[in-house]
Amino acid sequence: MDKLKKWLSDTIDGKKKFPTNKIQDNKFNKKNNYQKLNIKNNHKKNFSSKNKFKIMPLGGLNEVGKNCTILEYGDDIVVIDAGMQFPEEDMLGIDFVIPDFSYLEQNKKKIKALIITHGHLDHIGAIPHFLQKFPSVPIYATKLTRGIAMKRIEEFSLKANFQEINPEKDQLNFGNFNISFFRVNHSISDGVGLFIKTPNGNIVHTGDFKFDFCPADGVKTDFSRLAEIGKERIDVLFSDSTNAQKPGFCISEKKVGQALEEVIQNAKGRLIIASFSSLISRLQQIINFAAKNNRKVFISGRSMINNLEIASKLGFLKVPRGILKKLSPKIDELPPKEVLILTTGSQGESMSALSRISFGSHAKIKIQKGDTVIFSSSPIPGNERPITNIINNLFRLGAHVITNDAMDVHASGHAYQEDLKLMFSLMKPRHIAPIHGEFFMRMAHSDMLTKEFDLKENQVVILENGSILEIDKGFVKKSKKKLPVNLIMVDGLGMGDTASRVLRDRKIMSENGVIIVMFRAFEKSKRLLGNPDVISRGFIYMKESKKVAFETSISGKKAFEEAVKKNPHINLKDLKNEIYKTLRTFIRKKLNREPMIIPLVVFI
Amino acid sequence: MDKLKKWLSDTIDGKKKFPTNKIQDNKFNKKNNYQKLNIKNNHKKNFSSKNKFKIMPLGGLNEVGKNCTILEYGDDIVVIDAGMQFPEEDMLGIDFVIPDFSYLEQNKKKIKALIITHGHLDHIGAIPHFLQKFPSVPIYATKLTRGIAMKRIEEFSLKANFQEINPEKDQLNFGNFNISFFRVNHSISDGVGLFIKTPNGNIVHTGDFKFDFCPADGVKTDFSRLAEIGKERIDVLFSDSTNAQKPGFCISEKKVGQALEEVIQNAKGRLIIASFSSLISRLQQIINFAAKNNRKVFISGRSMINNLEIASKLGFLKVPRGILKKLSPKIDELPPKEVLILTTGSQGESMSALSRISFGSHAKIKIQKGDTVIFSSSPIPGNERPITNIINNLFRLGAHVITNDAMDVHASGHAYQEDLKLMFSLMKPRHIAPIHGEFFMRMAHSDMLTKEFDLKENQVVILENGSILEIDKGFVKKSKKKLPVNLIMVDGLGMGDTASRVLRDRKIMSENGVIIVMFRAFEKSKRLLGNPDVISRGFIYMKESKKVAFETSISGKKAFEEAVKKNPHINLKDLKNEIYKTLRTFIRKKLNREPMIIPLVVFI
Repeated sequence: MDKLKKWLSDTIDGKKKFPTNKIQDNKFNKKNNYQKLNIKNNHKKNFSSKNKFKIMPLGGLNEVGKNCTILEYGDDIVVIDAGMQFPEEDMLGIDFVIPDFSYLEQNKKKIKALIITHGHLDHIGAIPHFLQKFPSVPIYATKLTRGIAMKRIEEFSLKANFQEINPEKDQLNFGNFNISFFRVNHSISDGVGLFIKTPNGNIVHTGDFKFDFCPADGVKTDFSRLAEIGKERIDVLFSDSTNAQKPGFCISEKKVGQALEEVIQNAKGRLIIASFSSLISRLQQIINFAAKNNRKVFISGRSMINNLEIASKLGFLKVPRGILKKLSPKIDELPPKEVLILTTGSQGESMSALSRISFGSHAKIKIQKGDTVIFSSSPIPGNERPITNIINNLFRLGAHVITNDAMDVHASGHAYQEDLKLMFSLMKPRHIAPIHGEFFMRMAHSDMLTKEFDLKENQVVILENGSILEIDKGFVKKSKKKLPVNLIMVDGLGMGDTASRVLRDRKIMSENGVIIVMFRAFEKSKRLLGNPDVISRGFIYMKESKKVAFETSISGKKAFEEAVKKNPHINLKDLKNEIYKTLRTFIRKKLNREPMIIPLVVFI
Repeated sequence: MDKLKKWLSDTIDGKKKFPTNKIQDNKFNKKNNYQKLNIKNNHKKNFSSKNKFKIMPLGGLNEVGKNCTILEYGDDIVVIDAGMQFPEEDMLGIDFVIPDFSYLEQNKKKIKALIITHGHLDHIGAIPHFLQKFPSVPIYATKLTRGIAMKRIEEFSLKANFQEINPEKDQLNFGNFNISFFRVNHSISDGVGLFIKTPNGNIVHTGDFKFDFCPADGVKTDFSRLAEIGKERIDVLFSDSTNAQKPGFCISEKKVGQALEEVIQNAKGRLIIASFSSLISRLQQIINFAAKNNRKVFISGRSMINNLEIASKLGFLKVPRGILKKLSPKIDELPPKEVLILTTGSQGESMSALSRISFGSHAKIKIQKGDTVIFSSSPIPGNERPITNIINNLFRLGAHVITNDAMDVHASGHAYQEDLKLMFSLMKPRHIAPIHGEFFMRMAHSDMLTKEFDLKENQVVILENGSILEIDKGFVKKSKKKLPVNLIMVDGLGMGDTASRVLRDRKIMSENGVIIVMFRAFEKSKRLLGNPDVISRGFIYMKESKKVAFETSISGKKAFEEAVKKNPHINLKDLKNEIYKTLRTFIRKKLNREPMIIPLVVFI
């Protein structure tokens, strides 16, 4: 927590700058074939139109997660985003999943740049793994995105050649690519969409976006910039589908602010607000309302502290002097009406501060009668159960809990149907490719636009991870080929070493545990020395089931003896296999269970 | 499927009656101290008011599931419902959870009756386990509830003394208890609430209910009956809280019918409708619309077939002749516009027909372009992820999918806020005890009623599983004592044998697998014979990680030798423990993983 203190004093003194010493800004500038130019429309000279323009999503199309798209033109590759995905339920013990970079590895030399649209983990989370494979590729991002991504890179003790982009001015040229930017509103500040031109076709990639006419961070959508892009020929619009089933416009962040202000004004006790640590503009609003209502703000959660620190350093967060406090037992000395705690854990993460608060096991925060807890968030699908458990526990401890269901204390960062229609109308693309979201979301996007704008079937491009979309002289075509898109699972520090066999074994053991049956036998005669030992974990309580253990042992003994009788020269592998088959049948019949069975034979 | 065929012919011939031979109706009548009377208000003679009236919920208050409530007065106990609960996510390998009957076991002789409010699994699922412990206790239920519960009892090869009640007429007297009934609307027909009178206080137990002014089964709420009960003194109203956070009235089943009819009328291809197998009135509506639109109805899913069969036999379902068809490959010979498939699996159950259809692995049903799949259901919290996967797959195969989000193709069976207010207004109870639902739902119920009816704090009784509520001469008081309410987990055929230790081990193995390190040593000298063997399952791919296996082996060897060096007389348990600690530290440092580690020592 000393970090917070230091940051507080630094912030308040205003003397802090971004720690540029850690960034080796122009190290690779000469090595790589790219230019960063502030001149518009200079990309047409000397360019080749012999090549097809290929767009190849590696991730983000079968999930909300691991966004990563390859753009290829001749000898040039530019990558958009390198995100991670949280594991599915059947990926037992997996921490996260990253895109399959194998096509990039085969074309290592072509890669000119990685461009990041915004600082969420599903867009930046796999940068460290990208860097491990392609350490010299320069990374481009706006100020805040760069700051957040740098933090993640540092956690992996890596370094990067990170270039800051100014979306209002900058254009990047990499070989045949000309890339310019437009600001978008999203649930994190400083996000951008991309306008990508090649001699053989142009596309727009919205990134994650919504339209917010009153964004809390004050950075409005530049409609004239969008209209300007829309004047050009857009062959394909790649557009965010996350909320494509939701009618209407996305709620403005200002509205969320009003709801939060109402609660903060009227609460008589302490306030605990759980939200996303990257939602800086929301946190800014909360801090402002706290100041107005004479509450101190206590920060809990590592990522919350990190992101507030970065945002503050980079000028995306203004903290009134004396408002932010170190979390300490002294919190109990303040009158409840002067306390506001900002915390992570809104997704029910089991080790989060909020989870510990709800179990009464947080060292510094104990729920008191009269506390109000606000979930300024909505559950990511799959997290409903743990979140509900936390809510139940908080109520039980005497807190009042307010969620998104009861009040507008959260707004999504993704376009609703009307936002999507507005984007489509501004861009007037020849084709639409719904991206960012599960299949049903992308179908909803395509169905809605088709109906609304009377599109023809061939104007909608439904891609999958690994699809190759080719643009050639205005013709947009999905290739029959596909890139490899295996699930690369990261487990602890290991990466990609958890094969499906391992996962299958984990599943078996998660349901029925493991039984080890250990035989001792004389090597030559293969005569058993006593009954085999039966050891189990996660099966049934063997101590209370001595009978089961005994019968299993006898069943194993018989199997061993019969196998040896049938073939006195049986090899160890076959012997184990025979024992295994007998024991599996025995346990299935006897107990109707299918544990992992491991026979071990020790020859003496 | 022959069953379906037989049932069809039986149903159409109208010659089928309920198989009464399996019910031993009056076997226990004389043994047990109860009477079944059709006379009202006769319960006041000879009754004792010396005893307290105790209401003790065993389940249903911390979950939507395992509903079970004990009523006790002096020497008499009546039990309401015996339901099961589906396992929470951390109950790895558990099939379901049942109430802890240990208090009932201690008071076996007092139990006069089990009364079932309706035929859902969270109210009937634990009847077999109840019967295993209390085989002679008579069970009371309405016609359909009895039919469905009998089916479940038969699956466990059990028999029961099952009495049918007529909620319009019957009153049951058990010692000091006088129990009468009122019909309720719910997502299954033939449900009831209970009015329970004792000399020392009266309560109303709503069961699961909503008000539906146009129920699809035509059985309307008898408001005059409710008003009549409301005229009496109700000390405590126990009322359903499942939807207490939802404003307004619950949608009528008729409205759902209209939405379904619209889809069925307009669909150009085949229709596949997934719903709850117990929602007989919904299924009836669908069958009617199918008949009207010249579609044949094919039934898929064992519980769907069972419930339709029971409902049909008991007169709760009328099937027009020739509409229901056996599911066979011939389905493909009919024009798509004449096919409607009714299936289970709306909760994403992994082995359900719908799940197999979505994976393209169903033997008889393959998705065709133009198929429409309707989820006439809403996801039970926790099931969102598997349901979403099925929807994605169905879209991918070319089907169009309609869910509850897009149209009113489902209505809940539980009261919304206005329903709850209406029930409260009809009953005018002295106290309200929100039941049926997680803590946050019951708090929402209590908050809402308190606000609306200006209740005093002591008029609201918040109970937990195991709470004892006492009514004594009008005084309603929560006892400081609690009944034991352990989670009794049923795993395969076993019951209650999966202790928390076992679950913890499963969790460890589900995340990181197991490593077995097997040592061979001479018994006397404790000298090792070679390096220990390392065997793993669900850990990392040992074949590809020979180095890891080798280093683990060496680390284990060193631990063994050091422990023996320190104490040559070390016992086996301590030796294993020393090895375990060293290996755990080694693997944690080396690989940042925490698998289950099992050291085995074989002395020669």
